[in-house]
Amino acid sequence: LLDCLVNGEISSHVSAGDRGLHYGDGVFETMLVAHGLPRFWQLHMDRLATGCSTLGLQQTPQNVLLREVQTVSAGHQTCVVKIIITRGEAARGYAPAAATEPCRLVTAYPVPADFGTDVAQGIRARICDLRLGIQPALAGIKHLNRLEQVLARAEWSDPMVQEGILLDSEDHIISGISGNIFLVSGGRLLTPRMDRCGVRGVVRAAILQAFKPRCEQRRIALDMLPEADEVFICNAVRGILPISRIGHWEYGAGPVTREIQQWMEQQ
Amino acid sequence: LLDCLVNGEISSHVSAGDRGLHYGDGVFETMLVAHGLPRFWQLHMDRLATGCSTLGLQQTPQNVLLREVQTVSAGHQTCVVKIIITRGEAARGYAPAAATEPCRLVTAYPVPADFGTDVAQGIRARICDLRLGIQPALAGIKHLNRLEQVLARAEWSDPMVQEGILLDSEDHIISGISGNIFLVSGGRLLTPRMDRCGVRGVVRAAILQAFKPRCEQRRIALDMLPEADEVFICNAVRGILPISRIGHWEYGAGPVTREIQQWMEQQ
Repeated sequence: LLDCLVNGEISSHVSAGDRGLHYGDGVFETMLVAHGLPRFWQLHMDRLATGCSTLGLQQTPQNVLLREVQTVSAGHQTCVVKIIITRGEAARGYAPAAATEPCRLVTAYPVPADFGTDVAQGIRARICDLRLGIQPALAGIKHLNRLEQVLARAEWSDPMVQEGILLDSEDHIISGISGNIFLVSGGRLLTPRMDRCGVRGVVRAAILQAFKPRCEQRRIALDMLPEADEVFICNAVRGILPISRIGHWEYGAGPVTREIQQWMEQQ
Repeated sequence: LLDCLVNGEISSHVSAGDRGLHYGDGVFETMLVAHGLPRFWQLHMDRLATGCSTLGLQQTPQNVLLREVQTVSAGHQTCVVKIIITRGEAARGYAPAAATEPCRLVTAYPVPADFGTDVAQGIRARICDLRLGIQPALAGIKHLNRLEQVLARAEWSDPMVQEGILLDSEDHIISGISGNIFLVSGGRLLTPRMDRCGVRGVVRAAILQAFKPRCEQRRIALDMLPEADEVFICNAVRGILPISRIGHWEYGAGPVTREIQQWMEQQ
């Protein structure tokens, strides 16, 4: 936690009555900022707006957020910035009051230490035991109710395993714990739909735009995973991470993954 | 928000890095305190312990919590006290660090203004459009991921409707938004199982103990609701609330509900 602005003021605290704390009543974005420029800014802002709209939160002007992202990242060549928007402070009870002022946090963090090596060498993953619940009302947005991810990440401690693959309660593949998943199969890019659970990632959205003719959003059963030619995880901070192994299944970082990594470097 | 203790100190703020805010990584209890005595204290403590165990949070000693509940409620004849335990402050990322110190908030609130009248006259309810996702890993405990309840409560604004009935994605009846539900049918007390979603309420637990021979936990399909003789909601703060109407279906506050209300007054 390098620098933090709460509602535009330097602070390291939020109100004990904030609905983000009491109910997870809010949304967030995590982005990579290099030389003051947030990568995929507009896609982050689009998803944030969708999330606020889904939860009925007031929209925060983008220029306010951009200024604060640049303030907290000033002095850091590269850093991670997290924006949290909550419904703010309110009386006890689930009913959201219309007049509540949202609370916004903009915080800079250091980039992960392993940044770069995983991109080149690929990572090991496991299939998580926890199954995501199916909840179309919250699917796609990056809201603050993340206990499923916390429990799934707590399933293992082996530092050689860097990612967990999440399935839904019907054993469809949904995503990694902190990134979306793509399977490369016969030259096509397959990625799960995010209409019943999971988060619509910004890198996922950018790939779907840039490689549209070769992409397909679909339900992906678990048994398609060992059949895939290549598998990768994408994440706004860590980029395109080839998966080298899931349990006994091994994958090479093949030509399609390398092509998308090269495209990513230009973003 | 009358009085608030954060980790035992008078404060109205929590760290901006708290995992309760970032992920909803914690649990809570809301209780009625009259003359310094929290009603159903042991049942609240049992559920809190179960929740901490499910999430892998350090347990907080009960005597510490009781002292803090009595501190914040001092000077109020009757008040509501909410305890929140989060995993505390940590570096960015879902993985819960073993060494993290939990953060605890103990806050006093005024009792709801309508306290008492609803108990006598009954309340009107509606069937919510939102369906609860099925997630056995989090079912039963009172965790901080409450966006489903927030969205369900935002579905209506008619002040004459005081409660929403939540169904799961398979259209089983689960609970009210802020209380458990019982159906009285042929003299028997039916209440939904809490093994796939919903919260195991403390009043529900107390009723199941006190009226054991007449109680049954089971799956309850929506079509059993119009057939019920009596329906009530139970909640640690508001007590036993007869439901007088759900949409077009009307119910009297019958003899079994009144019997349980009388039992409740002695608790």
